[in-house]
Amino acid sequence: MKSWRASSARQGFRASLFLLGLTYQGFGGLSLGFALLAWALGEDTRGFALAALLGLGLGRLFQLLGHPEAEPRRAEVFASVALVWLLVPVLGAVPYWLSGGLSYLDALFESVSGFTTTGATVLADFGRFGESLLLWRGFTQWMGGVGIVVLFLVIFPQLQVAGRQAFFAESTGVEKERLTPKLRQTGLAVLKVYLLLTLAAFLAYGLSGIPWFEALANALATAPAGGFSPNPLSFAAYSPLAQWLAVGFMFLAGVNFLLQYRFLFGGEVRPLLKDAEFRAYTGVVLLFGSLLAFYLYTHHLYGLEESLRHAFFQVVSVLTTTGFASVDFAAWVVPAQAVLVFLMFLGGSAGSAAGGIKLVRWLLLVGLLRREVTRTLHPKAVLPLRLGSRVIPEEAMRQVAVFIFLYTVLFGLGALALALLEGDFVVAFTASAQAIGNIGPGLGEVGPMGSYAGLAPLSKLILIFLMWAGRLEILPVALLFSPELWRRLR
Amino acid sequence: MKSWRASSARQGFRASLFLLGLTYQGFGGLSLGFALLAWALGEDTRGFALAALLGLGLGRLFQLLGHPEAEPRRAEVFASVALVWLLVPVLGAVPYWLSGGLSYLDALFESVSGFTTTGATVLADFGRFGESLLLWRGFTQWMGGVGIVVLFLVIFPQLQVAGRQAFFAESTGVEKERLTPKLRQTGLAVLKVYLLLTLAAFLAYGLSGIPWFEALANALATAPAGGFSPNPLSFAAYSPLAQWLAVGFMFLAGVNFLLQYRFLFGGEVRPLLKDAEFRAYTGVVLLFGSLLAFYLYTHHLYGLEESLRHAFFQVVSVLTTTGFASVDFAAWVVPAQAVLVFLMFLGGSAGSAAGGIKLVRWLLLVGLLRREVTRTLHPKAVLPLRLGSRVIPEEAMRQVAVFIFLYTVLFGLGALALALLEGDFVVAFTASAQAIGNIGPGLGEVGPMGSYAGLAPLSKLILIFLMWAGRLEILPVALLFSPELWRRLR
Ligand SMILES: [K+]
Ligand SMILES: [K+]
Repeated sequence: MKSWRASSARQGFRASLFLLGLTYQGFGGLSLGFALLAWALGEDTRGFALAALLGLGLGRLFQLLGHPEAEPRRAEVFASVALVWLLVPVLGAVPYWLSGGLSYLDALFESVSGFTTTGATVLADFGRFGESLLLWRGFTQWMGGVGIVVLFLVIFPQLQVAGRQAFFAESTGVEKERLTPKLRQTGLAVLKVYLLLTLAAFLAYGLSGIPWFEALANALATAPAGGFSPNPLSFAAYSPLAQWLAVGFMFLAGVNFLLQYRFLFGGEVRPLLKDAEFRAYTGVVLLFGSLLAFYLYTHHLYGLEESLRHAFFQVVSVLTTTGFASVDFAAWVVPAQAVLVFLMFLGGSAGSAAGGIKLVRWLLLVGLLRREVTRTLHPKAVLPLRLGSRVIPEEAMRQVAVFIFLYTVLFGLGALALALLEGDFVVAFTASAQAIGNIGPGLGEVGPMGSYAGLAPLSKLILIFLMWAGRLEILPVALLFSPELWRRLR
Repeated sequence: MKSWRASSARQGFRASLFLLGLTYQGFGGLSLGFALLAWALGEDTRGFALAALLGLGLGRLFQLLGHPEAEPRRAEVFASVALVWLLVPVLGAVPYWLSGGLSYLDALFESVSGFTTTGATVLADFGRFGESLLLWRGFTQWMGGVGIVVLFLVIFPQLQVAGRQAFFAESTGVEKERLTPKLRQTGLAVLKVYLLLTLAAFLAYGLSGIPWFEALANALATAPAGGFSPNPLSFAAYSPLAQWLAVGFMFLAGVNFLLQYRFLFGGEVRPLLKDAEFRAYTGVVLLFGSLLAFYLYTHHLYGLEESLRHAFFQVVSVLTTTGFASVDFAAWVVPAQAVLVFLMFLGGSAGSAAGGIKLVRWLLLVGLLRREVTRTLHPKAVLPLRLGSRVIPEEAMRQVAVFIFLYTVLFGLGALALALLEGDFVVAFTASAQAIGNIGPGLGEVGPMGSYAGLAPLSKLILIFLMWAGRLEILPVALLFSPELWRRLR
């Protein structure tokens, strides 16, 4: 028994090494492409060349040492995913480091921020980076976004971990069919929407007057709710039209991709309009957007159109965890900033690349709390928990509660540590909140026009950890720190 | 069926009116005593006289309109308790209003802050209040503390609401015997410890050189973890010896009273030393006290003894939700303040009058989260949740989770509303945290040497709500807002 377990665990480890090997080779190939691009643009090729060499070399080595196992156990898959999501950015940091003139820690911060679609930057001086590096930044976000939707809509549901990921599929209406045979189609559907969204944003941005190179980099950062802009002023550098277009595309990036697929390719409007999360999402945008616009307008900060534009831009940007800015909102008065800080804790929709807690979880939590009150009135009643017309299994509910707890506790510990290190409550609070929610900008020094460059090295490591843990919804990372998992490998 | 329910609900309502009538008459009698005291001291008697008149008159009226029902249903008891805990402070505010020169809203704030053992004050000018009013302030805290321990250790366990309150009894080792027949003894035991603690603090404070009147008022505010001091400088006005004594008495006020009873009157040391919550409590005090002392000393803020004293005083004061201060910690640098802000979210021990989330709940939550990781490794294992050697029922666990959620959500909404109203993140965050945790001081303008006088009226109402909801652990207050409860009365 003991030896079977150990051998199975070792097989799991070799499977994850194999997976890492394949991923590294893919990124090696991509880096090679970027090396050629940098060469064509007359920019520094060394970073991409080394990344290509390491990616292809180490990738091949890991592939040979590893083993393609048919059915690794779920705990090992979780831990492997967590490991890969850290080791790919480790490689992806090389170009920033060698060609961008950043320290390796700063390069790693920028790389993790990219692959986790966070968009928090240590770049204070954008002139340092050539176009190839700015495009690489956008591309890491785009690839990170692909990774996340595939992970949460295709890979995790196969593991059917205690209702956790199955719940995401459920909330998109996929549960009526059997899951596994449809997963490939699910993956393809999501990718179609993702590509379409990217392409549409690219064209719209370009046609609205954004220089085509910047339009591309911004589009790559829009679809995954990423927020890395090639322009140091983010969308504050562009026209009102471009800003309104971004509001629309960010909004779409925060909507469940499967529901969008059924709408776009199947003409089904009702599943979207009847979806509880989509309704809540639209409601939150309208409510907080109007509230903020009203405040900005009545306090004479902007004219009417400008109040509406900046309010809805910032509300959609923070709610979807994109993190673009149409104005330096860190310079707003506290009440206007407070609205954005509050939205940091809501998050976009499940089934998109948005980060954070996500609205569907809040809906379920509110349902749970209401049921608790009812239970006091009717102690013996059996009270199933519903979302729309769907009954939510208790198991899924428990997972939602555990996730929100882990999220809140990690956020709190992160904020404490950053307050101790940085000596600034607002920076500490918002940096921790944005990192675990994969949002990007905070307030104060780390606001949308600021950067994370000035933080202490330990603060940067803490933020790297929070971005990583938040993006994977914590459990896979927590597993990696479980002594028992490592005991199995012995 | 319908009519039975309605009549039963109405009976429950009349029972709560009866209870309110008795409580009002008790407070009327107390006010009469204070009116005599004020008269003897040559101070303004009008406030106490009117409170006595209203208490005795309305109390008698409510008693006559009400009905002493043997077994009201639990939902009605919960709602009644919530109502009484609001209507008693409404009466208790009269002396501050008539004799203390406060607006009625400010008087209500001070009164709610007293009865909920919060200790947040709107008093900017202490000279306004005579000794009778300052003693009244301390007395409301002392009575509020009695009310809370009786409520959570005697009344709520009789309702056996879905494991919620039974859990508190459990965590004190009472579960081995049958609950109900022992409840009277439990109540008496707790009151003995409470009286002894008050008396010991009074004598020790007085002997350490604190003027005897102030020693009494401070002792009345120590046992319930209240924090109202008759001195505007709180314990910063007293000698180092008095401060160290307060550290000891605040520490005891944060320990489960039943465990203290078994130790003091039964000579049982082991139940205390083996109690998981007590061990965590001692550990948190030692860890954060040392950490803070080290920081204060190495940053040359104070000498060695002074660093230890101010560190342990503030850590124990905030952790137990007492809220006394030995120094104006709102003037400390951010990292030192951050430690205290973090402690605001932990809370003291269950079975004491301390507020906040309480350590035992955090211990259970950590257990829940660890189990979740283990569950991923062993999907089919049955994993009971333990605290020490005790198995915690899933039902109790669910209640703990629901409580922490409600607490966090209310805190967050409160902080948002206060940020919108006050335009200051630190004031908003700490005022909301201290109010729902019944702590007292926050940071910035509302720090230990500041006051809540300058806040907007709506902010004060929000804080009144948070103090009230936090003190009753939210569920009874949530019930009061449930439309179904009111439908039953029709
Ligand atoms: K982002
Ligand atoms: K207090």
